[in-house]
Parts: sequence; structure tokens; C-alpha cells
Amino acid sequence: MRIAIDAMGGDKAPKEIVLGAQKAAAELKNVDFLLFGDQTQIKQHLTTEDLSNLEVIHTSEVIESDDEPVRAVRRKKDASMVVAGRAVKEGRADALFSAGNTGALLATGLLVIGRLPAIDRPGLMATMPVLSDKMDAFTMLDVGANADSKPINLQQHAILGSFYAKYGRGIKHPTVALLNNGSEASKGSDLTQKAFALLRDTDEINFIGNVEARDLLMGAADVVVADGFTGNAVLKSIEGTALGIAGLLKDILLNAGTKNKLAALLLKDSLKEIRGQLDYSEHGGAILIGLRQPVFKTHGSAESEAVYNTLKQISSLIQTDLMSDLNKVFGKKKEKLQENNKEETNGR
Amino acid sequence: MRIAIDAMGGDKAPKEIVLGAQKAAAELKNVDFLLFGDQTQIKQHLTTEDLSNLEVIHTSEVIESDDEPVRAVRRKKDASMVVAGRAVKEGRADALFSAGNTGALLATGLLVIGRLPAIDRPGLMATMPVLSDKMDAFTMLDVGANADSKPINLQQHAILGSFYAKYGRGIKHPTVALLNNGSEASKGSDLTQKAFALLRDTDEINFIGNVEARDLLMGAADVVVADGFTGNAVLKSIEGTALGIAGLLKDILLNAGTKNKLAALLLKDSLKEIRGQLDYSEHGGAILIGLRQPVFKTHGSAESEAVYNTLKQISSLIQTDLMSDLNKVFGKKKEKLQENNKEETNGR
Repeated sequence: MRIAIDAMGGDKAPKEIVLGAQKAAAELKNVDFLLFGDQTQIKQHLTTEDLSNLEVIHTSEVIESDDEPVRAVRRKKDASMVVAGRAVKEGRADALFSAGNTGALLATGLLVIGRLPAIDRPGLMATMPVLSDKMDAFTMLDVGANADSKPINLQQHAILGSFYAKYGRGIKHPTVALLNNGSEASKGSDLTQKAFALLRDTDEINFIGNVEARDLLMGAADVVVADGFTGNAVLKSIEGTALGIAGLLKDILLNAGTKNKLAALLLKDSLKEIRGQLDYSEHGGAILIGLRQPVFKTHGSAESEAVYNTLKQISSLIQTDLMSDLNKVFGKKKEKLQENNKEETNGR
Repeated sequence: MRIAIDAMGGDKAPKEIVLGAQKAAAELKNVDFLLFGDQTQIKQHLTTEDLSNLEVIHTSEVIESDDEPVRAVRRKKDASMVVAGRAVKEGRADALFSAGNTGALLATGLLVIGRLPAIDRPGLMATMPVLSDKMDAFTMLDVGANADSKPINLQQHAILGSFYAKYGRGIKHPTVALLNNGSEASKGSDLTQKAFALLRDTDEINFIGNVEARDLLMGAADVVVADGFTGNAVLKSIEGTALGIAGLLKDILLNAGTKNKLAALLLKDSLKEIRGQLDYSEHGGAILIGLRQPVFKTHGSAESEAVYNTLKQISSLIQTDLMSDLNKVFGKKKEKLQENNKEETNGR
């Protein structure tokens, strides 16, 4: 098992990427970690020299966060992200990891690694913690690969998400719901109403209907399907709210007199637990699903702990049958999916 | 000043509506409160008989939460919501308040009260607390009146939101931002890219560009414009996350041993403060803006305190020049807005 790592992508690269990879390599001896990037900079941050399962591969270019994605991937042939992608494409690695420019990573996935032929558009898929006892986590997609989605994209993402819940997360009969502005079947925009009709007739999934954003964190479904624009906004709203409240709490516990400081001391363990439940970095990165090989993304601001957690998540995922199964099922164009697609295109 | 109240709308109606109205009437002596609904039920819940500024007007029908909106408003001529709407239309009240079926309230606004001629679609507008010191609150629209929005709707909502921030909230030069999936001008869906171009050229507003959902609670702009589907999802995500975390905290403080209970005691005042900052009911209801007269909506699950707070908010708003100014500016069809509208419709 080998993971190709774009060591130069992200606001805190290469330092935090290198430290996270080093920690993962020290722990996961059965996985090889390939660090792509400027070797001088990378080696500066490596504190252990003798990790036999960590290799540095020098590249001379970097894709910046404000680069125009497709152009950057096409022109910067020696960019760390692109060279790492090529290693995956050519079978020298099983997965690609980057904390860099999301658009460029999507372009690398499409142009370098290639999509599954039966999937029109890959989706960005994130797994987030649930705060009730109903389930541990839920998987949502698309959280931002596509700014404009069609009903057929949502249908394909529902199937992919359900596949992932089964083979990647080990849930036997994952429930799939559609993110909508009301729970009744009749609710929704033009897009969600059409998607609802498609999902209801999709045999491959256990569709349980609409879900509202308010109920996501309480465990409304194992898989939640959304168009990429709304999914992105919902993910960022949840993160922003959790961070905002965490900040308020911190202020109250640490900056507001002796009484509160004493309380903070008493609550130390419990607060750590809450933080664990809210900490999205522990739940790893987002997966760009719908490609021939898996591509993983974490926040641009990810630090070594988040990088390490995502790499652990990747290593367990590539030991499952998920990718080979996905390739078996979606490896060639499917008549049925094509037909739906035609209908849909004519209808719009 | 008179407020027409739909006493029968909402999961906890008429009880919580009546109690909230009674509290408001006891406090705000210069405002008359008209309670529309079943008089026997309403009188059951009134605990003070001698409020001269609270009047009960009997109606025999109720619009239910699962009624088809337009049909219900057309057929149930004696429904509390519709009769209250008619009182506003005919000048017997200055604003309509309901916790009932949102779709029916929109239909009542459009069919009974009537829209401002220069506004194509009213928007649902909510004002939410900001957790940083930058500003107290931000106003977001559309949070759910329209499931499908066009660029021209977003432009009109930006102007309405800015008007409200100025005349309703007293902000001299309110900043207006567009909710988008990235902060750069080039980002977005087809809709947000077109809306961005319109907003940039709108002289009436102080447009500061795109904002991401992650930054809303930190005070990114005074007014945030979103399409109705995304705005609805963002509002519900923020609420769901805040409620989920509040539940976690409560569990930890009250059900987890003596140490935590002691901490809870120490933190009592601070937690009350946090709760105040997060409590959306204190920030009142949402306004359906773009109509001849203001229509207010709170959660279907609203209890008397939220009803009372919203009624206070309404009474201060109808004492401003907001509605007369809106009617002056948008009271007849505008050439410029019409032209944009044509262009937009052809373009799609």
C-alpha cells in the first residue's frame, strides 16, 4: 500500500504535511508514504531520518491557492500535486493526498487520474460526527466539487455515497437522504424535486426521503446527498458555528475571573471529550469520489494532526475493497445511467 | 399602531401565541394587538382580562401546516391567517404576525396584502446574532421564501436588505455581501456569478463582495444575500449546530458526576450569557420583505417568549419610516429593474 502525498499544498505546507506524514509512517509500518515536493524544504522538517517507509520525491513546481485550476494542472507539469497524481495514475501509489487548491485537485483527479466512466462528475465527500447516540457519523456529498449540479449528478452521488458507507465505513444497509428545504416529498427547488424522483426509483440505494439541514448533526441518515453549492454552504455553516461557539466557551472559561477558571479545571476531561466530538480533523479529510483511484483533501489550514488522521483514514480505506468494487461497477459506461442522463438533459 | 396576530398558526398555537401577545400588550401600551382565531380557545389562555389594547377577533377556520398554501389561502376565507392579512390590507393593522405555515403566509402576503410593484419576489429575511465584537447581528435574505431564485431576485433582495439595515436597524452605511462558495470574485455557481455582476453595478448598496458561510457568525457583513434554497439550508445548519452543541454541553454539565455539576454552578451566569448570544428567539422572527406591509414569521415551534420578542421587534419596526420609504421607492414598477429582469429572463 502506498500513498502519494502532495507535500507542498496547503497554507502550512510543507512543514505540517511533512510532520503529519512522518507520524503516520512511524505508526503504520505496512504503508509506504511518498512525499512529493521540494526536497530541501521537506528534509528540513523531517526529524527522523530512518523511516524506511517514507520516501521523498523531488518536484520543482507548486500549484498556488490562487492558480486557475485547469490551466495550472496542464502547464505546471512538475508540480508536486500533478507528479503525485501521475504516480497514482501509473499504479505506483494507491491514493493521492493533498491539502492544496481544491479546484486544482479536482482537475488533477479528472485530467491525470481519470474519472470512472459511468460517473459524469466526481463529488467531494465528507464524513462528519453526529452528536446524538443514533450513529457515529454521517457522510455528505457533494460538499463542493461542483458549483452547479444536475439531478443525474445527485443520483450518481447517492449511489457512490452508499457504496462508500457500505465498503468504506462498514454499514450494512446505509440510509440515504436528500438535503432539502422541507421533509415532505413535495418540497424543494426544481433540482431537488427532480432528484427526489430519481432517487426514489434508484434500486441500488436505501432512500429514506428528504432531510433538512437542521437535523444533520442529530443523525438523520448515513448518507446525505446535496448539490455541490448547498453542500458546501452547509459544511461551512456547521464548521463556522462550531468554531464560533468553541471560541465563546474558551473566552468564558479562561478570561472571565477565578470562578470560571476553577470551573474550567473541573471540566477539563469533559471538554476534551466535547472537542473530540466536534473536531472535524479527527474525522479525516474529504474524498473526491467518482475517480479511478481515491483522491483525498483536507483543509488548506490543516496542521500535522489533521494530516496524520487523514493519512490513517486513507490507509484503512485503501485496504478495503471499495476502489476495486467501484471500478467493477462504474468501470464502463452504463446504459441505464446514460438514459437517465439524456432524459434529464432534455428536461432542462 | 396595530399588529394583526394569527393566533392559530404554529405547533403550540393558540396557547403560546396568546401568552406572548398578552405579555407584549401588558408592556407596550402604545400598540394595539389584534388576536385572530377561535375566540373560545383564545380566551381560555388569556389570564388577564383587562388589557384595553388587546382585542380578540373570532375566525372559524385554520390553515394547517400540511395545507397546500395557495389553495388554502384562496379557499379558507375565514382562516385566522387570511382574516388577519385582510385587516392589514385594509389598513386596520400595520403588520401581520404568524407562526404558521410559511408557504401559506407567503401566499397571504402575495394574494391578500400584495407585493411592492417593483419587487418581483418577496424574500424571507432573518437577523441573527454575531459572535464576535465586530457587530451585534447580521441580516440574511432570502432564507426560504423562494426555492429557485434568479439573479434579479438577489439584486432586489440586496436593495431591500440594505434598506432594512438602514431604516430598521439604524446602520448608516450597511455592508452587503453575497453568500458564495469562495471569497474570490470569480467563484460561484452560474447564479451567484451572474448575481455578483449585478450587485457590483448596483449603486443603491455598499457591496463588499462574496462571503463564505463559515464567516457569517463572525460578522462578515451587515446584510448577506443568498438564494432562498441555500439561505434556508445555511440558517437551519447554524440553528442545528448551535442546538446540538448546547445539548452536548447540557449533558456534560448536568449528567456527568459531581465535579461537572459543581462546575455548572460556578458557570451559571456565564452560561446564561452564552445562551443569550445564541438564542435566536431573542432576535425575533423573520420578515417577509417586498410586500406593501410587513409580514412577520417565527418558528412553528415558537413559545411565548419568542412570540413576545418578535412582537416587540415588530412594534419598534412599524414606528420607523421603513415601510413608507419602501412604498415610496418600490411603490411603482421601475424601468431599470424591469429592463434587468427582461435581460435576465432571456438569458436563462
